[in-house]
This record gives sequence, structure tokens and C-alpha cells, in this order.
Amino acid sequence: MAPILLNCMGNEHKDYIDESPVHVKNPNLFTMEEDILYHFSLGTKTHNLPEMFGDIKFVCVGGSANRMKSFAQFIHKELALPGNSDDILDICEGTDRYCMYKVGPVLSISHGMGVPSISIMLHELIKLLHHAQCRDVVLFRLGTSGGVGLPAGTVVITDKAVDYSFQAKFEQVVLGKVIIRSTELDEGVSSELLKYSKEIPNLPTVIGNTMCTHDFYEGQGRLDGALCSFSHEEKLEYLRKAYDAGVRNIEMESTVFAAMCKVCGIKAAVICVALLNRFEGDQITSSHDVLVEYQQRPQILVSYFIKKRLGLIA
Amino acid sequence: MAPILLNCMGNEHKDYIDESPVHVKNPNLFTMEEDILYHFSLGTKTHNLPEMFGDIKFVCVGGSANRMKSFAQFIHKELALPGNSDDILDICEGTDRYCMYKVGPVLSISHGMGVPSISIMLHELIKLLHHAQCRDVVLFRLGTSGGVGLPAGTVVITDKAVDYSFQAKFEQVVLGKVIIRSTELDEGVSSELLKYSKEIPNLPTVIGNTMCTHDFYEGQGRLDGALCSFSHEEKLEYLRKAYDAGVRNIEMESTVFAAMCKVCGIKAAVICVALLNRFEGDQITSSHDVLVEYQQRPQILVSYFIKKRLGLIA
Repeated sequence: MAPILLNCMGNEHKDYIDESPVHVKNPNLFTMEEDILYHFSLGTKTHNLPEMFGDIKFVCVGGSANRMKSFAQFIHKELALPGNSDDILDICEGTDRYCMYKVGPVLSISHGMGVPSISIMLHELIKLLHHAQCRDVVLFRLGTSGGVGLPAGTVVITDKAVDYSFQAKFEQVVLGKVIIRSTELDEGVSSELLKYSKEIPNLPTVIGNTMCTHDFYEGQGRLDGALCSFSHEEKLEYLRKAYDAGVRNIEMESTVFAAMCKVCGIKAAVICVALLNRFEGDQITSSHDVLVEYQQRPQILVSYFIKKRLGLIA
Repeated sequence: MAPILLNCMGNEHKDYIDESPVHVKNPNLFTMEEDILYHFSLGTKTHNLPEMFGDIKFVCVGGSANRMKSFAQFIHKELALPGNSDDILDICEGTDRYCMYKVGPVLSISHGMGVPSISIMLHELIKLLHHAQCRDVVLFRLGTSGGVGLPAGTVVITDKAVDYSFQAKFEQVVLGKVIIRSTELDEGVSSELLKYSKEIPNLPTVIGNTMCTHDFYEGQGRLDGALCSFSHEEKLEYLRKAYDAGVRNIEMESTVFAAMCKVCGIKAAVICVALLNRFEGDQITSSHDVLVEYQQRPQILVSYFIKKRLGLIA
């Protein structure tokens, strides 16, 4: 097992010349003297990005900084890497916008909440992977969500990321004009994840559509925001329509995540745990310990995937 | 001076019965047995919100957690409050979604980046102010931004918060339908801030429209993202149109901030410093020290406003 892992962890990224590179879709980047990744507090002149990141094969992103630190420590133990997992340093310590941890071939990054926040992170991550000459990278979003007709604790692997009208598209404004991008994710990675979920005990998992909203309260039909102009019955009617359109969970980042990964040729998957069943309520009332255990479920599944890919599990 | 300040800092909020309360626009909140403010890790059953927050008169919000902690320490010194400003505790320490500091009658909260992230914070903040029975609260967003035709370091007080088509409106999705909200801010507070800016040395300040985008790169016409499909000339043309429409800076939160405050009857203002002039570039290349000094400028202006209101400055 070790040689395979070491191969991924060294600076041997030139070995992967036949594998799929990360595409930036911006010719300007090839002529810029310096590129400052402002929200990471990294840059091409101040940091040797190929040396720091050239061996990255798996990037795992999630909203919460604490959760992505826990994931880094968890994957460190799972991959049985040398050193103390408590000593892992935040590579973005020069800023508080995001945090970033590197554990062998795995990068763990927080992205905050909502499409704009994750979109800034993705622009700079994709540029980072490009500058570092990474190849054949798989990108996972590990998140929390509201379940639609599913019990709390269920893990949802996203089939299609859909908008508030249940369409698999993302609207991007470019210089004042709206353009539409596809939100298709990688079917191969999703199927592989679903297959592995059946090999892990106590990991109830489904595949379904994920609705991405720009708001946690009115946009998701919650009755408990500072503003609410609709009835309980109207809320349930909207959730029923979502369910009928194949939606199994609701979160706030999947459409832009899918859209940007697709444009840049990066295989990507979204794996979110449902913290509640939205047909039954709006408030997240489970205890801290229960919520922590739920949030570990996507991490366990993605860790299993990574270990399979690295040959650490037969 | 002290009696005025003490009056605002005690639990004497019942004295303000004739002043303007914070309106929630949701009848459900009046019948809920418990309200869990999930992203603050606070709740009506677990915390005595009137006791903790009843004396709040000024709420200052900004994207970065570190910056809002610095602001809390700064305002602690400015108001000459007892105790060590380094000892101020994060009230939201049970979560890493936001941080929150209370300094006498001032609350300082971080909101992350983008409309969805600040919108979650605003829902829970407005509910918190309502549960705490706060009255006559002024809300400030202190941010960073890209300047449009302004030198770096200029402070922009927002006249109108506008969208990518330069219109003063915010589109909110409610149960799958788009509704339009006005983004008008409080003229009185803005004029007062502009007047005070002239009394403070080295604080170049203008009033102008602020464009709010949902993206830092393509939406703001940056040439240096992972994706860019337009030319330098097309970028400049868009910025010129924005300038002609009165836009003086670009950021990512002002429209929903203005819209929600207006609906809930909260006087609000947006004060952002320009970190660069977007006609001259896209990357933020100023040194760390220069950027730190720029970011203090909105804080200095808002602190001056608060001290004036509290009678600490004649």
C-alpha cells in the first residue's frame, strides 16, 4: 500500500502527464507576471505552488472552518500518515476568509456559506491547481443540508444540482449579462460513492437532486425567519413539488460548484448529510453530539473513496 | 459624558418605549415556544436575550471575523469602557459560522462573504434584536470594496445599493417565485456620516452608489479569475457604464442588507473602503500594512458617529 500512497504524496506530478489537467478558462493567466490568490493569502511569486500542491489528487471542501479542520485530522489518521494530526497547519493562516489543510494527496478547504462565497474559493482553488500543475484531481463538496422527505442523518449524493425552479442550471452574471451554465456532475464518481456507501455500516445513503438556494429562510420555505409571508400549507406544497422533481435535499452551494467544475474539466461530486426532514420542521433541534455524528457521515464516505483510489482498501 | 453612556449600557431598555422597535415580519415568531438562532448558537430558551442584548443601540457588521474582533477592541478603547479590550469574548463561540462581540451598546458581528451569507446573519440578528426588545437601533455595514474611478483608500458611503444592471432593487426568491425589494438606505444616517467624515483628518470620503454582485471575478469584470471570456476593453466599458450610473464602488452584500433593514424598519448605512481603483487593475497588490490602515477607515468614521450619538464628542 505504502508505495502507491507515497507516489501520490511526493512531487512526482510529472508522472501524470497523460492524466487530465485542471483547465483554467482564461488566457490572461498565461501572460500575468504574478497571480495573487488574495482570499487564500497565497501567490505565484511568494509561494512555490507546484512544490506545495503538485501532488494533490483529492480536494474536499465544506462550509465550516472547524469541520474542514476536523476532516483534515480524520483523513490524516485514515491514511495512517506520519506525524501528529493535531499539528496540521492552516495554509491560509494569513487570512480569515478560508482555511486550508494539506494532508498527503488531500486538500481540505472551507468555503463559507452560499454561492458567492464558494465561487470566490473555487476561482482561486482552480487557479491554484493550475499553477501547481495538478492532474487528475477529484473535487468533493462535503456539506450539511435540509432533507426533503428523508430522515435526519441520511447522506445524499447529488445527482443533479438544481435551482429554485428545479432546473439543472446556474445563472452567472458576466459584465451585466446573464449566461447559463450546466450543473452536471460526474456520474462515475457519484455511482462509485453510492456503491461504497453500501459497504459501510450505518451510513444510510441515497442519490437524488439537490436544490441550491441563495437564502436559508424564505428561499427554502422556512417559517421561522425574520421575514415570512407564506403559510405552513404553502411551504409544504413547495416542498412536495420539489420532491416530485426529484429533490432530496436543499443546500446553498451545489449549482455553482457543479457549473465551475464542469467548465474546468474537474470531476466533482456533492455529498451532504440531511440535518432534518424539512417536511417535519424548520429548526435544527438535534443535540450537538448528534449533529457532530451526522456531519462525520459524508467524511467517512469520502475517506473510504480516497482509500479505495489509493489502494489502501482492497 | 459617563451618565449618557451608562444609560445605554445598562438594562434600561424599557426607557426607550417611545423609540422605534425592530420589526420582525413574521407572525409565526409570536407563537413559537422556542426560537433557536442556529448560526449564532443562541436561543430563546437557552439564553436570556433581553438581558444579554437589551441595551444594544448600534450594530456593526463586516465580512471578516478578525476585522470585526479588531473593531470590537477599537470601539472598546474609543468608548473608554472599563476592562481590557483583549478580553472581549466571542458570544458565538459555539459555532464558527459567525463571530459576535458586545461592547457596551455596540454589537460587532462578522457575516462572511456574499448575499446568502449575510442574509442568514441578518435573519438571525433581526430576530435576536426583536427577542431582546431592542429599540432605536442603527445598523452599519463596514466593508471593503473595489473602487470605481476612486483612488485606493477612499471611503464610500452608499447612497443607493444597486444590482448588476445598476438598479436599486433586490430580487428575493420566496417559494420559487421572485419578488422585488427596495434597497433604499437611511438618508439621515448617510448625511450625518458624510458630515462627520469632513471633521476627521485623512479620511477621504464620498457618497455614491454601491454595486452589489454575487461573484468577485466574472460578475465584477475581473480579468484574473479561473474563468474569463471578455476583453480588457469590454471590462472598461462595463465599469464606465457603472460609473455613469453613479456607481463608485463594488462589493457583495449591500443590496440584501439594505432590503432587509428597510422591510424591518431599521435605520442602516453601508460604509466601505476602496482597496483599489478597478479602472487601474483587478488584483489587490497593496501591502498588508496599507490594507490594514485602509480597513480601519470605515471603523474610525462609524466610531466617530457612535461617540457623537452618545454625547462623547461635542
